[in-house]
Amino acid sequence: MPSPIIVPDRAVGRLSDAWRQCVGTGRFELALRRDYQDSLALIQREIGFRHIRGHGLFAEGVGVHQPYTYQGQNHTRYAFGYVDQILDAYLELGIEPFLELGFMPKALASGEQTVFWWHGNVTPPNSLAEWADLVKATLRHLIERYGLEVVRRWPIEVWNEPNLTQFWQDADEGAYHRLYEATAFAVKEVDAELQVGGPAISPGADHWLRPFAEFTGLRTIPVDFVSKHAYTTGPAQHVPFGVYQTLAPARSLLEQFATPRELLRGTSLDGLPVHITEFNSSYRPDNPIHDTAFHAAYLAPVLAEGGEHVESFSYWTFSDMFEEIGVPTALFHGGFGLLTHRQVKKPTYHLYTFLARMGPEVLARGEDHLVTRDAEGRITVLAWAPVDETGREPAPAGHTVRLSLPVGPARTAFVLRTSVSEGAGNVWAAWGEMGRPAAPSSRQLDALHESSEPSRRHLSLPVEAGRAELTLTLDQHEVTLVEIAAVRDETPPWLDDRRLFGY
Amino acid sequence: MPSPIIVPDRAVGRLSDAWRQCVGTGRFELALRRDYQDSLALIQREIGFRHIRGHGLFAEGVGVHQPYTYQGQNHTRYAFGYVDQILDAYLELGIEPFLELGFMPKALASGEQTVFWWHGNVTPPNSLAEWADLVKATLRHLIERYGLEVVRRWPIEVWNEPNLTQFWQDADEGAYHRLYEATAFAVKEVDAELQVGGPAISPGADHWLRPFAEFTGLRTIPVDFVSKHAYTTGPAQHVPFGVYQTLAPARSLLEQFATPRELLRGTSLDGLPVHITEFNSSYRPDNPIHDTAFHAAYLAPVLAEGGEHVESFSYWTFSDMFEEIGVPTALFHGGFGLLTHRQVKKPTYHLYTFLARMGPEVLARGEDHLVTRDAEGRITVLAWAPVDETGREPAPAGHTVRLSLPVGPARTAFVLRTSVSEGAGNVWAAWGEMGRPAAPSSRQLDALHESSEPSRRHLSLPVEAGRAELTLTLDQHEVTLVEIAAVRDETPPWLDDRRLFGY
Amino acid sequence: MPSPIIVPDRAVGRLSDAWRQCVGTGRFELALRRDYQDSLALIQREIGFRHIRGHGLFAEGVGVHQPYTYQGQNHTRYAFGYVDQILDAYLELGIEPFLELGFMPKALASGEQTVFWWHGNVTPPNSLAEWADLVKATLRHLIERYGLEVVRRWPIEVWNEPNLTQFWQDADEGAYHRLYEATAFAVKEVDAELQVGGPAISPGADHWLRPFAEFTGLRTIPVDFVSKHAYTTGPAQHVPFGVYQTLAPARSLLEQFATPRELLRGTSLDGLPVHITEFNSSYRPDNPIHDTAFHAAYLAPVLAEGGEHVESFSYWTFSDMFEEIGVPTALFHGGFGLLTHRQVKKPTYHLYTFLARMGPEVLARGEDHLVTRDAEGRITVLAWAPVDETGREPAPAGHTVRLSLPVGPARTAFVLRTSVSEGAGNVWAAWGEMGRPAAPSSRQLDALHESSEPSRRHLSLPVEAGRAELTLTLDQHEVTLVEIAAVRDETPPWLDDRRLFGY
Amino acid sequence: MPSPIIVPDRAVGRLSDAWRQCVGTGRFELALRRDYQDSLALIQREIGFRHIRGHGLFAEGVGVHQPYTYQGQNHTRYAFGYVDQILDAYLELGIEPFLELGFMPKALASGEQTVFWWHGNVTPPNSLAEWADLVKATLRHLIERYGLEVVRRWPIEVWNEPNLTQFWQDADEGAYHRLYEATAFAVKEVDAELQVGGPAISPGADHWLRPFAEFTGLRTIPVDFVSKHAYTTGPAQHVPFGVYQTLAPARSLLEQFATPRELLRGTSLDGLPVHITEFNSSYRPDNPIHDTAFHAAYLAPVLAEGGEHVESFSYWTFSDMFEEIGVPTALFHGGFGLLTHRQVKKPTYHLYTFLARMGPEVLARGEDHLVTRDAEGRITVLAWAPVDETGREPAPAGHTVRLSLPVGPARTAFVLRTSVSEGAGNVWAAWGEMGRPAAPSSRQLDALHESSEPSRRHLSLPVEAGRAELTLTLDQHEVTLVEIAAVRDETPPWLDDRRLFGY
Repeated sequence: MPSPIIVPDRAVGRLSDAWRQCVGTGRFELALRRDYQDSLALIQREIGFRHIRGHGLFAEGVGVHQPYTYQGQNHTRYAFGYVDQILDAYLELGIEPFLELGFMPKALASGEQTVFWWHGNVTPPNSLAEWADLVKATLRHLIERYGLEVVRRWPIEVWNEPNLTQFWQDADEGAYHRLYEATAFAVKEVDAELQVGGPAISPGADHWLRPFAEFTGLRTIPVDFVSKHAYTTGPAQHVPFGVYQTLAPARSLLEQFATPRELLRGTSLDGLPVHITEFNSSYRPDNPIHDTAFHAAYLAPVLAEGGEHVESFSYWTFSDMFEEIGVPTALFHGGFGLLTHRQVKKPTYHLYTFLARMGPEVLARGEDHLVTRDAEGRITVLAWAPVDETGREPAPAGHTVRLSLPVGPARTAFVLRTSVSEGAGNVWAAWGEMGRPAAPSSRQLDALHESSEPSRRHLSLPVEAGRAELTLTLDQHEVTLVEIAAVRDETPPWLDDRRLFGY
Repeated sequence: MPSPIIVPDRAVGRLSDAWRQCVGTGRFELALRRDYQDSLALIQREIGFRHIRGHGLFAEGVGVHQPYTYQGQNHTRYAFGYVDQILDAYLELGIEPFLELGFMPKALASGEQTVFWWHGNVTPPNSLAEWADLVKATLRHLIERYGLEVVRRWPIEVWNEPNLTQFWQDADEGAYHRLYEATAFAVKEVDAELQVGGPAISPGADHWLRPFAEFTGLRTIPVDFVSKHAYTTGPAQHVPFGVYQTLAPARSLLEQFATPRELLRGTSLDGLPVHITEFNSSYRPDNPIHDTAFHAAYLAPVLAEGGEHVESFSYWTFSDMFEEIGVPTALFHGGFGLLTHRQVKKPTYHLYTFLARMGPEVLARGEDHLVTRDAEGRITVLAWAPVDETGREPAPAGHTVRLSLPVGPARTAFVLRTSVSEGAGNVWAAWGEMGRPAAPSSRQLDALHESSEPSRRHLSLPVEAGRAELTLTLDQHEVTLVEIAAVRDETPPWLDDRRLFGY
Repeated sequence: MPSPIIVPDRAVGRLSDAWRQCVGTGRFELALRRDYQDSLALIQREIGFRHIRGHGLFAEGVGVHQPYTYQGQNHTRYAFGYVDQILDAYLELGIEPFLELGFMPKALASGEQTVFWWHGNVTPPNSLAEWADLVKATLRHLIERYGLEVVRRWPIEVWNEPNLTQFWQDADEGAYHRLYEATAFAVKEVDAELQVGGPAISPGADHWLRPFAEFTGLRTIPVDFVSKHAYTTGPAQHVPFGVYQTLAPARSLLEQFATPRELLRGTSLDGLPVHITEFNSSYRPDNPIHDTAFHAAYLAPVLAEGGEHVESFSYWTFSDMFEEIGVPTALFHGGFGLLTHRQVKKPTYHLYTFLARMGPEVLARGEDHLVTRDAEGRITVLAWAPVDETGREPAPAGHTVRLSLPVGPARTAFVLRTSVSEGAGNVWAAWGEMGRPAAPSSRQLDALHESSEPSRRHLSLPVEAGRAELTLTLDQHEVTLVEIAAVRDETPPWLDDRRLFGY
Repeated sequence: MPSPIIVPDRAVGRLSDAWRQCVGTGRFELALRRDYQDSLALIQREIGFRHIRGHGLFAEGVGVHQPYTYQGQNHTRYAFGYVDQILDAYLELGIEPFLELGFMPKALASGEQTVFWWHGNVTPPNSLAEWADLVKATLRHLIERYGLEVVRRWPIEVWNEPNLTQFWQDADEGAYHRLYEATAFAVKEVDAELQVGGPAISPGADHWLRPFAEFTGLRTIPVDFVSKHAYTTGPAQHVPFGVYQTLAPARSLLEQFATPRELLRGTSLDGLPVHITEFNSSYRPDNPIHDTAFHAAYLAPVLAEGGEHVESFSYWTFSDMFEEIGVPTALFHGGFGLLTHRQVKKPTYHLYTFLARMGPEVLARGEDHLVTRDAEGRITVLAWAPVDETGREPAPAGHTVRLSLPVGPARTAFVLRTSVSEGAGNVWAAWGEMGRPAAPSSRQLDALHESSEPSRRHLSLPVEAGRAELTLTLDQHEVTLVEIAAVRDETPPWLDDRRLFGY
């Protein structure tokens, strides 16, 4: 066994909150649903994201933009009933929107091209002025309802992945610049401290960044943040209701996070906050990789380090309640969700709950671990097993992490270890053993919920000279959270467990 | 003042439960929403309907029928994830579905005609056999999940208003008969005791009834019940996002209820249960009449008497969460709902809660009142003011009802009177006084909720020789529920309120 | 009719929060009960007190002080399980304790004298050092569990009404001074910023104030606040399970509030915060006056003005869950509570909810009204009818208040008026009409809950030159809250209610 | 390895519900508390007992019997406010009382002897007639409030352990007979179908049974059931706030259960239902044995077989909210509870949840296992490790149970295994590792809740010729529940997990 890593007693940094700054969601309208809200409530209780971002604020189903004719004239009525229902629910659950402006209301669209099963129109507005009116009316309504101080905390992103022809007609860069310009000025007309940004590009489109900086710099168009997306999968190999895809190493995500800061150095956008407004392994909502134990181990180092590179990186998405390609045909269908419908927890969900239990002081970082401490002195270790995303040499069980931890003055430490791995908290495997029931019965759902819980162990660790030695042997694809607290022994002198008959 | 009506001590009949047997709903998919379920929960707590019926079980958004290609062949996958979410929620709330089969899944449709903002396809199936497969797969899934005994309680209605060209291509009667035949046999193939019926016709289509009886009788096609709809409004006078319409007298509804039983006398369908699977004043979801105090007084005699004619009459619909013509642009928009979005109670909602508090024994009926008694001897009076649906002579305030009630042995009775009228529980008026805010603020919503509560008064009524005299003076458009209970006086002899200083 | 009072547009002061700074409670142990916590939850939702104060922190039933013998020696174990359950519940409900230290744990007591049905020991400690140990152990535990910053917000009061022989053996002033001294130094030993005070005297004991100042001043004993109690009733005229008592005018309460500040002028305690840690009309938990509509009108001017005199005045008590003289024998029994068992709301409860809806700016004060405005410009009027606490000339109905209110630019104002009076929200009267059932049935409880709601009316008031005239005619013993908001009219031009048939 | 036991496909019996017919509780008054009700709610959700029995219905704190003087005469007022609060809560939680009549209200008592920290008076009534009045008034009130049909389901037991001098002055058998006689006739005077019984004797008092039969038989006194208690511990070895005690084998409990039926054979009570109205290992509320993993394994065979001997056996008690000897001084204190305060689950709690998940058909019984099946064909195995209650040879890990199970037609079975043992779900051990904190912090409570969950594993078991072989290796003191369901494989042909990169 290797000698342990000596974790220093003094903090080497702070753990950024970037990992929890934002999370992705299916289209805005889905937030009206109970299953969606139940899932979000659970996530907020156990993880606690700050913002939530998704498409479809101006989709037909939300009903904001409603044209009508009166006395022979065309008019527009803005209706915010559903917007209010959704934002009220968000705020009640302690999460705030990261507003994405899009797609184009039918009556404002210049063309008929749509994206997704729910037909989001992706053509430029037939009138930039009317688009600006829509943006202003929306923001003014939000400010009136929720207060200016509150809405100033909500970043406003202009459109989604305009560099892709599916999302923006012809991927027309000039048209996007014009849309951005009109939008940014409209936002600032409402209030100069509202935060607006873009260009919300997909992976592989970093070449849009400098032109965006130049265009906005030249015309002094407001930009408060820069945004892009990051994914690691190759092309889709289709099967009915699903795909398989190759994967790049997880490190690729960190590299994608890092580029805006580098590429914009020296431009007018130098130093602005960078938001990764979407990331995941696969960009497909039907790749089973999202449901696996592998996935948590694969992403663990990304969550541990991502905050070193960007202000936020938003997991796409919190729930399988998501319908870009239609209504799912089975409970597990490779959806993006941390949770399936019905709030079954996937391993990656637990990775996030583990992060949420870590302290703010970073004591040590390594390629397979992160050690933190909180204000009460509790030490937390996140450790993960290595993965092989090529699938050629499946990751082994038995990977070992040894740490010498600065527990402080005490004779023992109480250790609580929580894990997910191929053998623990792997509900997708349980579902497979059940015969992959598409629509599980109530009893099966109960068993799935039980199978989705991580394993938990507790033990007493001896402390010598203020230090405890922790040796972790990791199962295949294991991610583990270890919480270590110095013990104050209150045992009265008269207690003697040997006097318990039966022992 | 006229002399009181002497209400007999002995029951003259039982109050049928037909008024609560069923209630209408917006399209099936909307049941996934939280506001919908919050409204239904409130309604079940305070009213308690038995069944719920709406369109769109097979709509694209529910995702039941999913075609795919595998190894060069076309197949269909049936997906019940959303169906289960909805039915689980219904059963949890103590309500069961009244299944309406329709509309046509896109991949099964023979044409492209659709109805409503949400594009329900209204063309016959391109294959009756595949339609029958869909019906059978659905029912088998429901039986597996909820149990045969339970599903046998759920009536199954074939299509909706096939006599209208909007709802059934060309209103083709022969095509409907063929659809009915294939469906009824498919249902019975799953289980002979499942209940199937039709023809779900709109008002004015009674001439479809006998042909339906003849067609099914001749070919011994199963029919377990007969269904039709009833409305009382004339043609729509459109304004933006709304209509005005003339109204027939409420009695017209009772007449419409009564025709199937008469018309089918002597046919093979003679004596079958009759379900009015939709009724209301206006058939438009944007007629402000639904929101008014008038509406409760107008419908009161219909609820009081409807059960004398049919097995059920289903108010269309329980909630304004309803989108046939799009997303509403204001909180009050003339929707069908007993409740608006956000659970604001309209006067007609209270009419239903009043019925729900009445006893099962009918002691007296009149043109402006209904008197019942429950097992504990509590007497309940429902009384309503006359209305003028022509609008020529608005109904007066001050209508009087006098009753001598058989309270039983006691010195006094405790009387609790709950009312809605132009001046009480008339939240639409409060909303008007507020300036008709389309999307009310939180504070305005609070004030609307408070304004939507009925007025309540209590008093002590002297009882002589077992009888109490109740004189009710009704405000304009008032509907009132009066609960009268004999008092057992437990006042100890030493209490003397005159010894309270301040009095 | 008199001409209206012209309410100025500019604020004349701020409405102090003293009325909600604290509320009284039955003994500490009762806080473990569900009915207690249900009542407190309702009160916090609708009123929102900051602190809660009651007797019995060290009562046997809480179990803090537990003596034992081990190896022939006597020891004490401090047990905080119930304390934690209660304080966790308080904090969860958004209320913090106002700690009252007392009474004496049996094993620490120097004598056997007890007070109340639950036998609180009221003798000095047999060892001031051990008492100080108990105080320190308790505070250290609280700080460890809830944090130092939090506990510093909790005032700590030494004992209760030591000037009465029932509450402190022989009402021994010197012994109280010694107890105070030992306690105050113990508190400050734990943390110098914890707030300690006394002498918690009953009405009629103002002569204890200057000696308390002299004793503490001379020996530089810490005092962070001064506390006393205020009541207005005369001696009890007993009946079984109840009393009747004469009443002084409500103004007497304000006079009692004002004395500490005056009497301590020039002493070492000059300028300290003054807390009225108990007040009510009657000091008896079995005087029906607490349940009446009279009571709300009687106390209205006290709540409106009390904050001009003291930092807090704590209504004794929030709930009828209170057992100083035993378990109540009827739902209404003259208890102190704003709520009865089962959360039935008394008129005085509504008085508090009215205050809770008022704005922070005071626009006008009068002998029958208080006018405020909030940050959104909403104006709120609290008005109350005169009372005659002698009972010689019962207060009349029909008292009128006329106000000209500065609504601001608008054509109309929306007015919501909420009232309790002899005829509205007077559930004690309803209970009387029911025959005073000692243990009401479920149905009776429902009717009582309904009868306990205030009446609510809404209307539209014309605004001219920024002003609206409000004329209030008050019923007997009415307290009314009127909320007035300027209307922004969103009515579209096409709406015309005259086109609604039925109107 | 031994060859497996062949579990037959045909049921050999039904699993009696006796184990869940009743559960014990701390004194009646404690049921007012929120922690108590929270615990009961959890237990009812996960276990589901039918009745609940405890002492103290007539204790002073409940306040039923209230003497007073009026116009010079003595009277009694019966007050049921708290009784109603408690019974309403019970019924809401789906549990009904098993009424124990006692102890003696102070004003009715003939002496001053009391039992317990809360001073229950254990002397005979000074008037049997007034006692009978109290009983009749109580039952009449219950019938009025809850209905006759309901109250007839509630057994009524006369007093508690009258054969012990602590519980009944002088353990006077004749006096008990007289009390029983007066009570039984009072009960039947209210309604002849109410169920009354006794003599509620402690272990070691079987010699009271035949005299009870003779006394009641001779005088034809109604007896509807016979009751006694069963415990297995020897005398207490005291330490502060705790005891240690020797234990008899668990089988001793079954032997104690069996005696009434045998001893009463041939008497007038022959064949009556027998209720063990209390049982546990230790009769002390401060013996740590109740908190251990040993305890679940020790009692497992008793729960599995008890129903073969009696109609009910009531675990004493469901919660540590229990105060016979005072307020507990630490979270774990050897209390009787299945749950500690704050709803931490002890291993014995899980034993009960395991029973609650078993089917009604018994397929096999053995000394270390019980096999059942439910209506859907799901097989459930309860297995337990052997224990050594002498403590001489602590039970080994590694005990093996092998079973061949009749799963039915399928290729595989889904197996879910849930366990508690020394190493799983043993929260008392976790608390020890924490240093036995008397009043754990919030974070410690969270860790305790997590540590109290059983371990869960799932797997796929091959089925051949309708049978699956299950081999269970049991950890020290393990109790395990294994649920086995035949799998219907819905895996589509196109899914191939090998195509998932990473695997």
